[in-house]
Amino acid sequence: MKLYTYWRSSAVWRVRIALNLKNLSCENAPVHLVRGEQRSEGFRGINPNAVVPALQLDDGRVLTQSLAIIEYLEERYPLPALLPSDPTRRAQVRAAALLIACDIHPLNNLRVTEYLKGRLGHSQDEAVSWMQHWMRAGLEAYQRTIEDAGAGAGRFSFGDAPTLADLCLIPQLYNARRWGLDLAGLERLVAIDAAAAALPAFQAAAAAAQPDAEPV
Amino acid sequence: MKLYTYWRSSAVWRVRIALNLKNLSCENAPVHLVRGEQRSEGFRGINPNAVVPALQLDDGRVLTQSLAIIEYLEERYPLPALLPSDPTRRAQVRAAALLIACDIHPLNNLRVTEYLKGRLGHSQDEAVSWMQHWMRAGLEAYQRTIEDAGAGAGRFSFGDAPTLADLCLIPQLYNARRWGLDLAGLERLVAIDAAAAALPAFQAAAAAAQPDAEPV
Repeated sequence: MKLYTYWRSSAVWRVRIALNLKNLSCENAPVHLVRGEQRSEGFRGINPNAVVPALQLDDGRVLTQSLAIIEYLEERYPLPALLPSDPTRRAQVRAAALLIACDIHPLNNLRVTEYLKGRLGHSQDEAVSWMQHWMRAGLEAYQRTIEDAGAGAGRFSFGDAPTLADLCLIPQLYNARRWGLDLAGLERLVAIDAAAAALPAFQAAAAAAQPDAEPV
Repeated sequence: MKLYTYWRSSAVWRVRIALNLKNLSCENAPVHLVRGEQRSEGFRGINPNAVVPALQLDDGRVLTQSLAIIEYLEERYPLPALLPSDPTRRAQVRAAALLIACDIHPLNNLRVTEYLKGRLGHSQDEAVSWMQHWMRAGLEAYQRTIEDAGAGAGRFSFGDAPTLADLCLIPQLYNARRWGLDLAGLERLVAIDAAAAALPAFQAAAAAAQPDAEPV
């Protein structure tokens, strides 16, 4: 398999954690988002939507969208499971993942801040306020969601093992810190982040650990 | 089951189509988004994220996020199937659905245009240009994605029966028309929309057919 990746993309980061937890190896094909390589016609032949990740299977077919890729990996390589077996609990884990993937991340990614600063003429400060607004609202809702779901006091969002929800949460917390979000009141999420940071699968998936990482 | 709904919410609309296709009945609990009812503490007790849909099960537990709800319905009530059985094809259908649910819809919903017009002081015309920008880019990518996936010339996005992808596409096309998007070049999507409009499950799920629909 070949993973089209960018070190700081939180969507690819989710897939990297899944691959590592399932002990799957993968060739890396970096796509430099800040230089706009995702918009080349060459890459649009891989993913017409011009975003990463894309996962090329050994038969040449290409899968896109991080959550679809992870569901595929879960079906093909079920262990360790990233979704619980109870249908209601599965839905709650998927909902927590989607809260981040739909309601936080799309509002904060590069193409959106490019539009805000370029076409709408906003300052970097205004773009950062925008990002912080959606991150704060979404992360507060995430924390309350896992509390309301009665997910208990496990080390991760739903119990003592990472699930699909944590795969989305950890890169989002990296972004939150990167953009200076105040995490006061989000102590449960900060504790989950610390638990993840102790696991090799999460360590190896982190932005700074990627071969295409740049000095910050 | 009780569905927290708003007639024009495209996220709830996806769930309504799934319920209808699977011939499931459900009590409706309208939440008036334009009046801000989703932000009441009462509704935050149902969904801390203050968005619809939310589906309350008969045991009182609440599921949120349209795609998590539909996956739950698919697992509990498998027929008619909204996902194909082949793992790669399933991933392609999920990816097409996520392209709309992550890369188009979150950028265009009410709370985002409220931020653009309120906090950032943009005009209605600028907000509409913003919406059209993301819809056009996303729908072009969607059309190319289903073509690249070799999904054939079926009446729907992946063959002759509706899948999860179509459940996302149809409400998005309603939004596109509502906001005056030029659909030139998107003829395959317009044809899918016409095929869906012929099915009672889609007709009954449409915004205008809801009990809480308002005159437009």
